[in-house]
Amino acid sequence: MGRSDALVIAQLGCGYWGPNLARNFASLPGCELRYVADPSPERRAFVQETFPKAIAVDTVDVILDDPAVNAVVVATPAASHFMLAKQALEAGKHVLVEKPLATSVAEVDELERCARLRGLVVMAGHTFVYNPAVRYVKTLIDAGELGDVRYVYSQRLNLGRIRSDIDALWNFAPHDISIIQYWLDDHEPTAVQRQGMDFIQRGVDDVVFLNLTYPNKVIANIHVSWLDPQKVRKMTVVGSKKMVVYDDVAEDKIAIYDKGIDRKAVLGQHMDFDRPMRADFSYRSGDILLPHVQLVEPLRLEAEHFLDCIRTGKEPATGITHARAVVSILQRAKAMHAPTQAAAG
Amino acid sequence: MGRSDALVIAQLGCGYWGPNLARNFASLPGCELRYVADPSPERRAFVQETFPKAIAVDTVDVILDDPAVNAVVVATPAASHFMLAKQALEAGKHVLVEKPLATSVAEVDELERCARLRGLVVMAGHTFVYNPAVRYVKTLIDAGELGDVRYVYSQRLNLGRIRSDIDALWNFAPHDISIIQYWLDDHEPTAVQRQGMDFIQRGVDDVVFLNLTYPNKVIANIHVSWLDPQKVRKMTVVGSKKMVVYDDVAEDKIAIYDKGIDRKAVLGQHMDFDRPMRADFSYRSGDILLPHVQLVEPLRLEAEHFLDCIRTGKEPATGITHARAVVSILQRAKAMHAPTQAAAG
Amino acid sequence: MGRSDALVIAQLGCGYWGPNLARNFASLPGCELRYVADPSPERRAFVQETFPKAIAVDTVDVILDDPAVNAVVVATPAASHFMLAKQALEAGKHVLVEKPLATSVAEVDELERCARLRGLVVMAGHTFVYNPAVRYVKTLIDAGELGDVRYVYSQRLNLGRIRSDIDALWNFAPHDISIIQYWLDDHEPTAVQRQGMDFIQRGVDDVVFLNLTYPNKVIANIHVSWLDPQKVRKMTVVGSKKMVVYDDVAEDKIAIYDKGIDRKAVLGQHMDFDRPMRADFSYRSGDILLPHVQLVEPLRLEAEHFLDCIRTGKEPATGITHARAVVSILQRAKAMHAPTQAAAG
Amino acid sequence: MGRSDALVIAQLGCGYWGPNLARNFASLPGCELRYVADPSPERRAFVQETFPKAIAVDTVDVILDDPAVNAVVVATPAASHFMLAKQALEAGKHVLVEKPLATSVAEVDELERCARLRGLVVMAGHTFVYNPAVRYVKTLIDAGELGDVRYVYSQRLNLGRIRSDIDALWNFAPHDISIIQYWLDDHEPTAVQRQGMDFIQRGVDDVVFLNLTYPNKVIANIHVSWLDPQKVRKMTVVGSKKMVVYDDVAEDKIAIYDKGIDRKAVLGQHMDFDRPMRADFSYRSGDILLPHVQLVEPLRLEAEHFLDCIRTGKEPATGITHARAVVSILQRAKAMHAPTQAAAG
Repeated sequence: MGRSDALVIAQLGCGYWGPNLARNFASLPGCELRYVADPSPERRAFVQETFPKAIAVDTVDVILDDPAVNAVVVATPAASHFMLAKQALEAGKHVLVEKPLATSVAEVDELERCARLRGLVVMAGHTFVYNPAVRYVKTLIDAGELGDVRYVYSQRLNLGRIRSDIDALWNFAPHDISIIQYWLDDHEPTAVQRQGMDFIQRGVDDVVFLNLTYPNKVIANIHVSWLDPQKVRKMTVVGSKKMVVYDDVAEDKIAIYDKGIDRKAVLGQHMDFDRPMRADFSYRSGDILLPHVQLVEPLRLEAEHFLDCIRTGKEPATGITHARAVVSILQRAKAMHAPTQAAAG
Repeated sequence: MGRSDALVIAQLGCGYWGPNLARNFASLPGCELRYVADPSPERRAFVQETFPKAIAVDTVDVILDDPAVNAVVVATPAASHFMLAKQALEAGKHVLVEKPLATSVAEVDELERCARLRGLVVMAGHTFVYNPAVRYVKTLIDAGELGDVRYVYSQRLNLGRIRSDIDALWNFAPHDISIIQYWLDDHEPTAVQRQGMDFIQRGVDDVVFLNLTYPNKVIANIHVSWLDPQKVRKMTVVGSKKMVVYDDVAEDKIAIYDKGIDRKAVLGQHMDFDRPMRADFSYRSGDILLPHVQLVEPLRLEAEHFLDCIRTGKEPATGITHARAVVSILQRAKAMHAPTQAAAG
Repeated sequence: MGRSDALVIAQLGCGYWGPNLARNFASLPGCELRYVADPSPERRAFVQETFPKAIAVDTVDVILDDPAVNAVVVATPAASHFMLAKQALEAGKHVLVEKPLATSVAEVDELERCARLRGLVVMAGHTFVYNPAVRYVKTLIDAGELGDVRYVYSQRLNLGRIRSDIDALWNFAPHDISIIQYWLDDHEPTAVQRQGMDFIQRGVDDVVFLNLTYPNKVIANIHVSWLDPQKVRKMTVVGSKKMVVYDDVAEDKIAIYDKGIDRKAVLGQHMDFDRPMRADFSYRSGDILLPHVQLVEPLRLEAEHFLDCIRTGKEPATGITHARAVVSILQRAKAMHAPTQAAAG
Repeated sequence: MGRSDALVIAQLGCGYWGPNLARNFASLPGCELRYVADPSPERRAFVQETFPKAIAVDTVDVILDDPAVNAVVVATPAASHFMLAKQALEAGKHVLVEKPLATSVAEVDELERCARLRGLVVMAGHTFVYNPAVRYVKTLIDAGELGDVRYVYSQRLNLGRIRSDIDALWNFAPHDISIIQYWLDDHEPTAVQRQGMDFIQRGVDDVVFLNLTYPNKVIANIHVSWLDPQKVRKMTVVGSKKMVVYDDVAEDKIAIYDKGIDRKAVLGQHMDFDRPMRADFSYRSGDILLPHVQLVEPLRLEAEHFLDCIRTGKEPATGITHARAVVSILQRAKAMHAPTQAAAG
C-alpha cells in the first residue's frame, strides 16, 4: 500500500496509558499519527518531544474538523469516553476507545446506533483479548483440550495507583470480564453479584469480589483490589479434562495441568450404600505443561486489528457486542448488601 | 501429678483424621487413651497395632457405660457428631468433637444445654486456632500492629479427597471461618452469601466462594475447592497500617508487609476539585518481615488445652461460643442463586 | 513365599537415619528384622518401643554369632562402616552399608575381596539411585532425549546438623556424586578438585565446591554446605538437545526444558568476518514439561533391591563398583590450595 | 551551574549496551552528549533518530580532535577498549570504559600511566557497584550486621546471547567479581582457579566455575553460563552473624537471614570426648527481613558519579584500582586442567 493509503489517526488524551497507544500508532506501517490532543501543557510538551511528527493540540475541534482524519483513539478519563466517542462518530471518524467503552449499556447502544448509521468501526481497547497468552487459552478451550469449562477465577491485585473517578471494579475488572467473556464465547451471565468495600475514599470501593453465574453450570469469580500486599494477576480455568493457570506476572505465563476427578462407572455399585462413596472416583494427576508462547506486544496487535477492521469493515473482536457485555456486567454488579456499602466517614 | 490423676480418654472413630488425635492422646502426659471405637475391623486392627495400650471396640456402649472414662473424643463422620456428642454428655463425659461440632445452630444449642446441666466441657476441634502461625497473626492484630483490620481473604484449594457426606464448604471452610472469627474476636457477620457449584456429584458443591460482611466495614472472602490444579492454603489480612500473608504451605508461613495507602492531610486541598485526587494519597511500601515462628504440632496444643479445660473448668478457646459462630455462618451461607444450584443431571 | 523363607536381618546403629532403615525392614514382606544393636540405652529403648518384634542389643557379637542372621545393615557413624562391614562379611552375612561405604578405595577393595570369597552381597546405601525422580532423569538420558550430556551442577545446602566426624563434603556429596555417576554410567572423572573452608570447627569443612572433569568434554560442579540460609537440593543437567532441573524440595521435582543453542550451518558464511558471529546461532526456547513422577519411598525400593540381590545373587545398582567410584572421587578431592585450608584457630 | 559549564561527552559505540549509556548522558543535567560514533550506518541512523541533539559520526577522529569534548565513553567490543581508551586519554579526554576496562593488567597499568600524566579520570563501567541493592549489602557488611564475611557464591545464568569475541567468563564474571571485590574492600585473592568448557564454539567457554580464595579464610565461588535453562542472577553472602541473599530477578531483591551456627562455650566440655560433639553447637534460625530498597537506575548513578569525579578530581569507586583487581582475577583465572579444555572439534 502506498503512503497515500495510510490511515490518518488522531488521539485524544495522552496521560497514563495514552503514550503506549501513541507509540504504536506512531510506528505502525499503514497509518500516520497526525494529532494528539491533551488539555495539559506538560503532556503536550511530552507529546511533541516523543512523537515529533504528530501535532499536539489542546482541543478536539481541530481533529473533528479535519476531514483527513480517518480514526480517533480515545484515551481520556472513563467518564468522558462516551461523549468523545459519540462526537467522533458523528464527525465520521472510526473510533478506538479505551476500556470501558462507556459507563452504561444505554450509552453503548447509542454508540452502536451512531456507528451503524455511518458504517463506522467502534472498537473497545480490551487489550487482553489480543494478548498471546489469553489467545492461547482460547485455542485450548475451542479445541476441547480442557473438556467442559466448569469455573474460572481471577485475581488482579496490587498496591496502589488508586483512582477517584472510578472504583477498583471499574478500573481493573473490565480486564477480567473481557477475558472471561472471550473465553466463554460472550455468553451472558444469568446472575451478577458483588461484594466490595470503600476504605480510603467514601463511595470508591478499593476491593471488590464479583460473582458471575453463567448458563450450563459455569461460574466465575473475580477479585480486584488496589489495596493488597502482593502484585497478582492470575486466572485459573478448571475444565472437566484439564485445568489451566494463566499467571501474567510469571516468566512462563501458561501452565496446563492434566488433572481432574472422574466418576468411575462401576456396574451395580450405585446401590451399595455401605461402601464409602469415595471409591467411586478416580483422581488424575498427570503432567504439567508450560507451553512456549511467543511474546508480542498485545497493544500492537490491537492497533493492527483496528486498522484492519477499518479497511475491511469487519467487526472487531472487541467491538460493540463484546464491549456491551463487559459494560452490562459491570452495570449489573449490584452490591449484595447495599446498606453496608455506605462509608462510615 | 500421679498416674492415678490421669484423665481417661475414649475416642470414637479412627478413620482419616482420627489416628492423629489418638496418637496425641496416647502420648500426652496426664491422660490415658483407654478405648478407641470404630465399626471397621480393619481400623480396629490398625488401632490395636498402633496403640497397643488402648482397647479397640466396635460399639460406643462400653465406653459410655464405663464410669472411669472422663472424656470422649468424637472423630466420626460429620453427620453423627451431634448425636454422639450428646450421648457422651448425657453419660457425663466431657467431649472434644471434630469440626464441625454439629450441622445446625439448634444442635449446638442443645449440646450447650446438655453440657451446662452437668458442668461438662464441650470443645470443637478447630485445630487452626491452636496453630502457632494463626496465633502469631492474632497477637499482631491485638497489639495494633496492623491498624484496623479491613478485609481478609482466604483460599483453601486442592485436587481431591472429595467427599459425599458433606460438600467442599462444610469440609474446608470451617477452618477458614474459625480462623477469621478468632482473628476478628468472634464478631457476628451481618451478611453471609455463597456462590458454589456441584460438578462431580449432584447436590455436593465442589467449589464455593463465601462472602462475609462484618460490622464496622470489615469484609471477608473465602474460596474453597477440591477441584483445583494447585494446592493452596493462603490467607491475607489487609489492615490500615500493615498487611499480613499467612501461607500454610510455604516454608516461612508468615509475611508482614509494611505497606498501605494513606490519605494526605493537605490543608485547604479538599475543595480543589481540579487537581487530580491521586495527589492526595501516599503509598507506603516498606520492609517485609518473615518472622520466625516456632513450629509446634497444633493438634498437640489442642489436646493439651482440652485436658487443661477439663481440669480447670475454663471455657475452651474453641468452645461452644466459637463453634456456634462457625456453624451459624455455614448454616446462613445460602446460595445467592438457588435455581442455578440444581445439578443438571 | 512361606515365613520360613524370610531373610533374617540385623541392623547396627539406630541413630539419626537408622530408624528409617529399621522401619522399612520391619515392615517389608519376605524379611524379618530380628536384631537392632546400639550402644545407647535411650536408642535401645526407642527400638524396643517402636519395633517390638525386634531385639535391641548393645553389642554386635550376638548378631554375628547367630547363624540365622542372613544380612546385616550398617547404620553407624561413617568411621566404623568399613570395620563393621568387614566383620559382618567374615561372619558370612550380606551387608547393606550406609553411605559412604568406606573412607578409602583400599577399604572398598578389601570389602570386595571379603565378599567375593564368600559369594556375599555388598551394597551401599546410596538412596538417591532408588529415587523415582533420579531414575526418571536417567531414562531421559538413556533414551537420548537430552542429546549429549554437557554438564551437571548440583547444590545441596542447608543450615545445620553439622557433624564433627566427617565434613560437609563427606556428609552430603556422596549423594550428588552417586547421582551424577549413575547418570553418567559410572565413567571415571579425569580430574577432581575441591575448594572448601572450615569455619566452625578446625579441619571440618562447612562448605565445599567440587569440580569434576569427565572424558568427552563433560564437567560437573557440586556445591555442598551446612552453613547456608536456604534449603536447596537442586541439580541441573544441560544436554545438547534439552535441559533438566531436578529440584528435590519442589512439589513437581522434574522440569524438562526444550531449550538449547544450535549452530546454524550456513554455506560459505564462515569466511564472512564482517557479519556479527551471533547470527550463526539459533536459540531454541520451547515448552517446559513437568512430568508426573509417581512418588515411592526410595528407601523402601532400596531395601527391596537389597533383598532381591541376596536372593538372586545379582550385583546391586549401588554395589561395589558404584560405591568405589564415589569413595574414589571423595578421596581424590584434594584441596586446590592446601595452605589456606588450615584453620586460623 | 550555567549551560556553559556543561561537560561535553562523546560516546564510542552504540550497539547492545551503548544506547543505555547514551540515554543517560543525553538526559542528565550538567552534561551534553555531543557525539556518538559507530561504524554501522544502521546504528548511526538509530542514534540520529533517538538522540536528535547528538551528532552521529563514523570515526573517532572528529571526537578526539574536538577540544570541546571533555570526556569519552567507550562502549565498543571488549577487544578495542584498551586502544580506544588510550587514544582518548592521549587526546586529553576523561574516559568511562565499559567492562572489562582492558584485557590484561599490563594494559590497565598503561591506562593508569596515561591518565596520571594528564590528571585525567579513568572509570570502568562496573554498573553493579552503583546498584542500590549491592550498595545496601555493602552497608550491612560495613556496619558489622553480618559479622565476619565467610563466603560468597554467585550464579549468573541464562540461555543465550552467546558471544564469539569473549567467553562466558569475560562476558558475565566481571559483574560478579566487581561486586565481590567491592563487598570485600578490594582485597586481593590468594588463589584463583577456573573450571569451564567450550561446547558451542571451539575455545569459547560457555560455562565457567570460578573459585576464589581470599586471605583470612574467605572464599568465593562464581558460576556463569549462557547455556542454562533458567535465568538466575543470585548472590549469597554467608556471615558469622547473618546471611544475605541478593536475587536480582526477584521483586524483593534483598533477604537478610538471622541465621547461623554458634559454638557453645561450655566450661570444661572440651575434654569430654564421649559426648556427641553436636551438642556443642547452637543453631540460630530467626527472622528473615526483606528490606525495602529504593530503586534507582544504577547506570544513571554511574553516569552522575563519572561527571562528579571529573569535576572534583576524586578517584571513582570503579576507578583504576577496582578495575585492575577485576582484570587481574580474570587474567589469573587459569584453567585447572588445561588439556581437557581443548575443544574436541
